[in-house]
Amino acid sequence: MEERIFNFSAGPGVIAESVLKKAADELLCYPGKGMSVMEMSHRSQMYIDIYDETVALLRKLMNVPENYEILLVQGGATEQFSAIPLNLMKHENGSADYVDSGNFAHVASEEAKKYGKVNIVASSREDGYTYVPDVKNIQWNADADYAYICTNNTIYGTRYIEFPDTGDIPLVADMSSNILSQPVDVSKFGVIFAGAQKNIGPAGLCVMIIRKDLVGKERPITPKLMNWGLQVKNTSMVNTPNTYGIYMAKLGFEWLLGLGGVSAIYEQNKMKAALLYDYLDESKLFKAAAQKEYRSLMNVTFVTGDADKDAAFVKYAAANGLANLKGHRSVGGMRASIYNAMPVAGVQKLVDVMKAFEKENA
Amino acid sequence: MEERIFNFSAGPGVIAESVLKKAADELLCYPGKGMSVMEMSHRSQMYIDIYDETVALLRKLMNVPENYEILLVQGGATEQFSAIPLNLMKHENGSADYVDSGNFAHVASEEAKKYGKVNIVASSREDGYTYVPDVKNIQWNADADYAYICTNNTIYGTRYIEFPDTGDIPLVADMSSNILSQPVDVSKFGVIFAGAQKNIGPAGLCVMIIRKDLVGKERPITPKLMNWGLQVKNTSMVNTPNTYGIYMAKLGFEWLLGLGGVSAIYEQNKMKAALLYDYLDESKLFKAAAQKEYRSLMNVTFVTGDADKDAAFVKYAAANGLANLKGHRSVGGMRASIYNAMPVAGVQKLVDVMKAFEKENA
Repeated sequence: MEERIFNFSAGPGVIAESVLKKAADELLCYPGKGMSVMEMSHRSQMYIDIYDETVALLRKLMNVPENYEILLVQGGATEQFSAIPLNLMKHENGSADYVDSGNFAHVASEEAKKYGKVNIVASSREDGYTYVPDVKNIQWNADADYAYICTNNTIYGTRYIEFPDTGDIPLVADMSSNILSQPVDVSKFGVIFAGAQKNIGPAGLCVMIIRKDLVGKERPITPKLMNWGLQVKNTSMVNTPNTYGIYMAKLGFEWLLGLGGVSAIYEQNKMKAALLYDYLDESKLFKAAAQKEYRSLMNVTFVTGDADKDAAFVKYAAANGLANLKGHRSVGGMRASIYNAMPVAGVQKLVDVMKAFEKENA
Repeated sequence: MEERIFNFSAGPGVIAESVLKKAADELLCYPGKGMSVMEMSHRSQMYIDIYDETVALLRKLMNVPENYEILLVQGGATEQFSAIPLNLMKHENGSADYVDSGNFAHVASEEAKKYGKVNIVASSREDGYTYVPDVKNIQWNADADYAYICTNNTIYGTRYIEFPDTGDIPLVADMSSNILSQPVDVSKFGVIFAGAQKNIGPAGLCVMIIRKDLVGKERPITPKLMNWGLQVKNTSMVNTPNTYGIYMAKLGFEWLLGLGGVSAIYEQNKMKAALLYDYLDESKLFKAAAQKEYRSLMNVTFVTGDADKDAAFVKYAAANGLANLKGHRSVGGMRASIYNAMPVAGVQKLVDVMKAFEKENA
């Protein structure tokens, strides 16, 4: 068996080795069924059992109240950048409040402009997204059809530490890069959605958690796959879903539950992040890029302040079996994505390699 | 190793065993890369190599001319039911001609009505879709923005034997259930698209072949993932694509090329279908459901004429290791989907089991 390296990719990201092993074992024949999950009709009972179990596991892991629907749809989070205004904005003169705290919040707000008025109610864009705007000082528009945030900024390495109170305005949250990494009170949100390729499973799947009263308001022009009411009515099967991606999500959810669920992984995530941030705070070579109080537990961004040294470090780390540490092309520097499935040993090795590099470059 | 059964599912359908074995072998570690394909960043060179090779293989297999773009997108064929009018219909007073030859052609025409005028220029709907309308007698509307057909009808088991000549009107074809099963002259089409889950790989992927002059005409309200111009500009990566589904398609394309490509599999497909149809034509119990001249090579529909006997046969076949022979819920009877990856031995065994059942029920 070939040796696996530590993969710090921002997404698609690392998947737990035991999950991959189980998937490999079952790939040719799902136990007792004589066929691969990939070959199962999505209408067959054997597949519906997999689907139902996946949804039940997510409901349990996130303690999703019964007045929320769960959907497992295609298109990643980006498809919902369009679907959210199409399903939630008033059909005439609709508007929504967006907090522009990072690249994906920004992109989502640009997409929503196709369908109505977008109010940027707070922004850290001019400051290079190194922090999240203070949620206590935001003036929400009373007539906004929804309020939109992105809870963790993959590229800049920041996250919301507390969530805004938007009163009667439904709060819509893109949690793609930190879903299942920390406990969240789902009842405070109108819609939670997340692309799977960071903390759930392979790319090509989007998890949706939608308060039931927000379903069924879509515009007539909404493409049928983006119509939440139709997807709810058809249990995410308006067409053939990403059946194998859903099965992989199920394996991931089982793995997380086996570790003790979200509260247990949250403790581990804080510990993993502290290993890195503590070293960054004492290092004379490396410096954390995000403001301290908004630091992400999932994406740790850092720089040396010298682009050549950054590049040299990325190369040095790769030679030591640490892959994908280069920062996003739009910001440079380094980024270590330490999602749920990144073992503590991987973070420890990264710190060791950073220390060795710092010593060699003192 | 558990024994695999013969799976006649209409989709997701059977995948070649050698393809699944290779996928299982490489699932934990893609050779030389230390990580699963599922964990690769879609922006990494190792993944871009997989993507580029997948596209190149499809171009070779279907002999796709250089003036056609190839996209590998999410959402299955159904997403394109919306995207096609959004990208091809004139923004004001657009219209298109649809041939209603089966369920998915019908559903596509209904979706297109959200965005413009739909002319049903020929239909076999009133006759239970047991044949495909004669393409020579269709009057196309000179001002139609495109003409639309579905080349194989999965539910009814019919296919186009010849394709219509629509002159200057771009011909758009949903080939989901018979792409790569027979040689096709791509240059006769404006757009060819196909959900992957029948003749390509797992569900969650749609293959698009689009003539270059048809790209870049989308309406302003087009959701960004459905915007063909944007997808072309971003090599199918407007967002993270279904990376693993694309890799599985690559393995499938390599397998098909190894067999001799489309012309070789076409000979095998004709032979497999003949095994079944010849027996159906001589059987006193079973009867083919589709009209003889329009019979599909991929989906063979048949009935006994007695619903109880149909159900008894499906059960009898399942007990003999032949799965998913029940016809679609909307038509009843039986359906054997014998896609490219169904071995000749599977079809032969089905005929043997049908003969045994007929003998026992004579």
